[in-house]
Amino acid sequence: MITSKKALEIILNHTEDFGVEEIPFIEATGRILKEVIVADRDFPPFNRVSMDGIAVVYAVFTSGKRIFSIEGVQAAGSPQLELQTTENCFEVMTGAVLPKNVDTVIPYELVVISDGKATVQIEEVKQFQNVHLQGKDRKANDPLLKINTVISPAEIGVLATVGKATVKVAKQPKVMIISTGDELVEVSENPLVHQIRRSNSYTLVALLERLHIQAATAHITDDKPLLKQKIEQFLKDYDVLLFSGAVSKGKFDFVPEVLDELGVKKLFHRVKQRPGKPFWFGVKDALNISERGGNKSFGLSGQNRDECHSERVKPSEESHTLVFAFPGNPVSTFVGCVKYFYPWVKKTMDIGFENKQKAILAEDYFFKPELTYFLQVKLENNNGMLYATPITGNGSGDLANLADADAFLELPDDRNAFKKGEAFPLIRYR
Amino acid sequence: MITSKKALEIILNHTEDFGVEEIPFIEATGRILKEVIVADRDFPPFNRVSMDGIAVVYAVFTSGKRIFSIEGVQAAGSPQLELQTTENCFEVMTGAVLPKNVDTVIPYELVVISDGKATVQIEEVKQFQNVHLQGKDRKANDPLLKINTVISPAEIGVLATVGKATVKVAKQPKVMIISTGDELVEVSENPLVHQIRRSNSYTLVALLERLHIQAATAHITDDKPLLKQKIEQFLKDYDVLLFSGAVSKGKFDFVPEVLDELGVKKLFHRVKQRPGKPFWFGVKDALNISERGGNKSFGLSGQNRDECHSERVKPSEESHTLVFAFPGNPVSTFVGCVKYFYPWVKKTMDIGFENKQKAILAEDYFFKPELTYFLQVKLENNNGMLYATPITGNGSGDLANLADADAFLELPDDRNAFKKGEAFPLIRYR
Repeated sequence: MITSKKALEIILNHTEDFGVEEIPFIEATGRILKEVIVADRDFPPFNRVSMDGIAVVYAVFTSGKRIFSIEGVQAAGSPQLELQTTENCFEVMTGAVLPKNVDTVIPYELVVISDGKATVQIEEVKQFQNVHLQGKDRKANDPLLKINTVISPAEIGVLATVGKATVKVAKQPKVMIISTGDELVEVSENPLVHQIRRSNSYTLVALLERLHIQAATAHITDDKPLLKQKIEQFLKDYDVLLFSGAVSKGKFDFVPEVLDELGVKKLFHRVKQRPGKPFWFGVKDALNISERGGNKSFGLSGQNRDECHSERVKPSEESHTLVFAFPGNPVSTFVGCVKYFYPWVKKTMDIGFENKQKAILAEDYFFKPELTYFLQVKLENNNGMLYATPITGNGSGDLANLADADAFLELPDDRNAFKKGEAFPLIRYR
Repeated sequence: MITSKKALEIILNHTEDFGVEEIPFIEATGRILKEVIVADRDFPPFNRVSMDGIAVVYAVFTSGKRIFSIEGVQAAGSPQLELQTTENCFEVMTGAVLPKNVDTVIPYELVVISDGKATVQIEEVKQFQNVHLQGKDRKANDPLLKINTVISPAEIGVLATVGKATVKVAKQPKVMIISTGDELVEVSENPLVHQIRRSNSYTLVALLERLHIQAATAHITDDKPLLKQKIEQFLKDYDVLLFSGAVSKGKFDFVPEVLDELGVKKLFHRVKQRPGKPFWFGVKDALNISERGGNKSFGLSGQNRDECHSERVKPSEESHTLVFAFPGNPVSTFVGCVKYFYPWVKKTMDIGFENKQKAILAEDYFFKPELTYFLQVKLENNNGMLYATPITGNGSGDLANLADADAFLELPDDRNAFKKGEAFPLIRYR
């Protein structure tokens, strides 16, 4: 049995580069940017009027002139006009180009307009006031968005502004979620007394959606030949298999055995943690990888991205398949996904995978076994301090307790008393 | 000009009930639950074996017996078996029903099996050990999920378990996002020197997606008759119109005027805040509402949900249309959406709309004007304490600065010095 820390380390040593794809920018929210976005022009691209009003020549104003004949109107979206007579002014609109030969914008509020003349009501102005000067925010070719940025609405706006109608983002791994167990029936079915409905698969689907991964699902009955045949195909078609259940020592827990027969190498089985101790993790190595120069080898990052997934569903000859087999109890599966699979995806995408989030324990807590304990907690932000109150349920089978809590607090395995006021690593799931 | 607090108050006094719809549970993540979910049976529904091993009679074990003949195997998903001879045992699998007449499960690790007999290697057991007793977690009809819960992966699992293949959730308002301004061109176009690309509309689309609202978008040129014709139709077809731009005092800022002519009542224009001062908010009252008994009146909540949106695109005779017209600068539009539109949606859905999130200012900050200031900040969780470092950009036009920050810190308008270490309301956008 290995520690939770060691388990995570092994998993993170098996990240892989799934390449890059180009998608419409408006569908890119939540995806990972895989190109640097630079300013295509200065921001703003011209001396931009930032208040509705009149534009005058500063030197003429300071020489004492307060009444200006209006030469015309500079509207937003119109080509730049040019002041013909320096004693005159233009009416100018927010968003418009500042006309040639003027340099100072006085808002309508400070001007009276009648008979084609504007009379200014103030005695002091600053040159270039209410003008957003060309290139003030960013210069052409300035980097605006870094590679490996998680695209949020703020980035969507930047992509639109610089004309990135399509954008390069990290490809997602192809994931298959597999449930096993003859006791499971479909959600729409009425279970017999000894049956229960499938739920872990759907929880996993929803957890993966948060990472913008659309996973496939399959249910296989406890029939070894069928299990083997199906898994063999899945190993060819998918980058990652997520199992829930069938990894303990039961007579019908064929999964570890079948994986072994199919050449999936076990990297660990059983982790010093609660819940989720019987977690099994393994890898099916690429076929012929040495012959292919190993360009899909583990840890490779940032190179050859466009070569992946280009023609077939999944390039099984080129890449590995990882197998995360979580214990079947609902809370165990849940912890397995957010504690191990999430950071694996993040490292695969080259974004920060180390968990720096912490929360402060709101009451003393005791946990005896020498195991990392994932304590379910309810969170509260109290004046910028994040407090975690334990919501202890009835153990790993108590699915409903997940709905009562917000997060897991990760309590280390080297002691059994956890004091109120101390901060521990936090894994939020809502 | 009104305060930001007053503006929010007015907006929140105009929430409305958009009714309920029933959707497949697997599509419900992020939506708001509009029914109580109860346990359809006990959790677990039977005395459930929680370790692979053998099941014996406790009294027989304590009387000294250590070698048990195996009567059979109780697999998960099989109907309950019954022990015929109390001196015997069953092999039992995790997830299986505990067979009749046995009460104690001993894991395989503590048993040696050969020749159809199981020899127990320990001297002490507890009755009902490794049995998850029926109803221990929840009893049939216990409430599992409250009404008005935001559905997360944890809730998806609960919905699956109790067989809610479809689930009642809050309907979303129908939202139209409208940009105006002749200076705007499409993202895929190359702007002329006096033009820029549309970006605010797409930022708003992405911000609304975070609330699981699929908004429509339209761009209208600065042509008053066209603007009027389009807006008239949108007022009929949508619950909410979000404008960006065209609400200041420019010659071509027809929006407030057109809204007025179309019977949209201005509730405020201009808010004591930066950025986003020229924010305009109004409401188009329902037609014939008195004749219809006013069952879509403001603030109504929890009743008549199923009556809404049942037949037509939008029941314009029954309901109001709200108009949020944000100033066109990118940061102004952004603040308008997260500070005002988000809480409005939340209150409309009957979920917590009061912002209790705060962060601690990481350095002193000064802001002179008597305005609520939405300071852009970068967040860091330091041992459970959330620190906000100012990322001051070049003002409301500086779109790229939004991508450098994580959130807004809301600095009150009643002073101009904000001290390091003090906590202020936080509006996160990533």
